[in-house]
Amino acid sequence: MAEKLLESQQIFKGKILTVKIDQVLLQNGNKSTREVVFHPGAVAVLPILANGDLILVKQFRYPVGVELLEVPAGKLDENESPKECALRELEEETGYKAQRIEYIGYIFTTPGFSNEKIYLYVAMDLIKTVQNLDQDELLKVEILRPQEVLNKCLNGEIIDAKTLSLLFLAREKGVI
Amino acid sequence: MAEKLLESQQIFKGKILTVKIDQVLLQNGNKSTREVVFHPGAVAVLPILANGDLILVKQFRYPVGVELLEVPAGKLDENESPKECALRELEEETGYKAQRIEYIGYIFTTPGFSNEKIYLYVAMDLIKTVQNLDQDELLKVEILRPQEVLNKCLNGEIIDAKTLSLLFLAREKGVI
Repeated sequence: MAEKLLESQQIFKGKILTVKIDQVLLQNGNKSTREVVFHPGAVAVLPILANGDLILVKQFRYPVGVELLEVPAGKLDENESPKECALRELEEETGYKAQRIEYIGYIFTTPGFSNEKIYLYVAMDLIKTVQNLDQDELLKVEILRPQEVLNKCLNGEIIDAKTLSLLFLAREKGVI
Repeated sequence: MAEKLLESQQIFKGKILTVKIDQVLLQNGNKSTREVVFHPGAVAVLPILANGDLILVKQFRYPVGVELLEVPAGKLDENESPKECALRELEEETGYKAQRIEYIGYIFTTPGFSNEKIYLYVAMDLIKTVQNLDQDELLKVEILRPQEVLNKCLNGEIIDAKTLSLLFLAREKGVI
């Protein structure tokens, strides 16, 4: 059921995103245009403290114009493995180093228009170190009981798709 | 904790996506660049049959190069309300008309680089009509038991973030 690429035009190559317009041949013989945003990929981590509390981060998200409460996350650096990235982003954003990290799957966030793939992890056996944010990152750490986090999903305070996806998988797997 | 727009440059205006590079002033006085993809918004619907079975759709997703199993979903047409869109997309993609539809919240799929907002619905009291796909849409309807759907989330067969988010909320609210 694949679509065959006929012609690709690169519209934009930014620091993070690349945008292309591709002409494709569909399985039914029709032609169509696909506007695609290429993204380097990312990780998201659910950090669980020894007492079961979860560590989330709150930050202003410019594209949507509001502050969101999310799991720690970040883009893959060049030549960085998802696991290395997860450990690095967790410590940079929260000031916790994980002695144990488990991969629980990946998601596509917007398969209709972007290839962004996010690798999901659960982090445990956490040791307090220091937060070390990028110069354009401003975020607050929030430590919450699992039930508080679930309530925030149900009442619309947690609305970030990667965060909901990761919490869902962690909950169905019995991790939280 | 907002960021102040200093200058905006429109890079691309396509049929669906608009891409801008914005210079922003951060709360800490630093300047930064934001590459932002503007999207018209979308809906996703979890259709539940009278016997509890769930209706999903499988389609090839060009940006990620694979077939994905997802809840029925689609972009908002101009001047269309999310509820109208949900009813329309459900019937077009699956050939079922909903006599009852409940809004259960919205998500941001990729708040780091796009404003895409997806309104989530659960649809019930379904009546069989006929599938009516766009000319560039090719998709297969799959009717599955809720437990089969959950298994597919856990074993990595369902990896679409809006689908996982909607299933999570429906499950936590006791709908499935």
